[in-house]
Amino acid sequence: MRDCFYCTKDQRLSGLMDKLCSLEWSDVYFLKDQRYRGRCVVAAKRHVDELYEMNDEEISGFFKDVALVAACMNRLYHTDKINYAVYGDLVSHFHIHLVPKHKSGPQWGEPFTDKLEKLFLSGEEQKKEILQFREELLNNNT
Amino acid sequence: MRDCFYCTKDQRLSGLMDKLCSLEWSDVYFLKDQRYRGRCVVAAKRHVDELYEMNDEEISGFFKDVALVAACMNRLYHTDKINYAVYGDLVSHFHIHLVPKHKSGPQWGEPFTDKLEKLFLSGEEQKKEILQFREELLNNNT
Repeated sequence: MRDCFYCTKDQRLSGLMDKLCSLEWSDVYFLKDQRYRGRCVVAAKRHVDELYEMNDEEISGFFKDVALVAACMNRLYHTDKINYAVYGDLVSHFHIHLVPKHKSGPQWGEPFTDKLEKLFLSGEEQKKEILQFREELLNNNT
Repeated sequence: MRDCFYCTKDQRLSGLMDKLCSLEWSDVYFLKDQRYRGRCVVAAKRHVDELYEMNDEEISGFFKDVALVAACMNRLYHTDKINYAVYGDLVSHFHIHLVPKHKSGPQWGEPFTDKLEKLFLSGEEQKKEILQFREELLNNNT
């Protein structure tokens, strides 16, 4: 197996995020750093570096998954806008950051960054958020 | 018509980017700031603020367009990675930035920003890049 932590799912991944659920084309993770409350990553199940390595079926399926996560994020966290970003210069496995933004929250009107002080929930709070998000996803996954 | 420059296509848009071409579900623009040579925006033809406002057909079509632009960008600009971002806190019309990254180029390993000094090509160079990109897109749009 290639040395990619979205493939091996080892402690490099689990140190950064907790598994929320698997959807048809993606794995969904809830970030440990919850500076942006509700922030997730949606990662393609199959390792590709770039969007154009997916076939049409994968593109449709993956972004349908992303849209579902975004819709649930909006309902749960009452977002004013969601930011979506695929960087991956160093961790190339195709994954998209979904970052809930609020007009009264940090970095409104500019790109979110990871340079803000991190905010970690208690174990109990993190678990509660994950259960709530998972339920919303599974109840709306048609 | 709503006051959105991706809808009105007025000088707020043309001050920032030049039209490259229309694809089936999107309009493609080549940025005037070419600090990242080859940088584009792909904007949904229909005004939506969020991905989950698109239906499944729109999601598939839009991201197939994005994948085509990314593949052409890779061939023309020999990218080491493409960064993709949808922000839109202030300009909410769903549009995605495609930013070619190189290992030896700016901000490798971190998110691209618009805080770098801008780099504008001459009118002649900009036109040449656009014609080349348009040709690549139209020749590969199946």
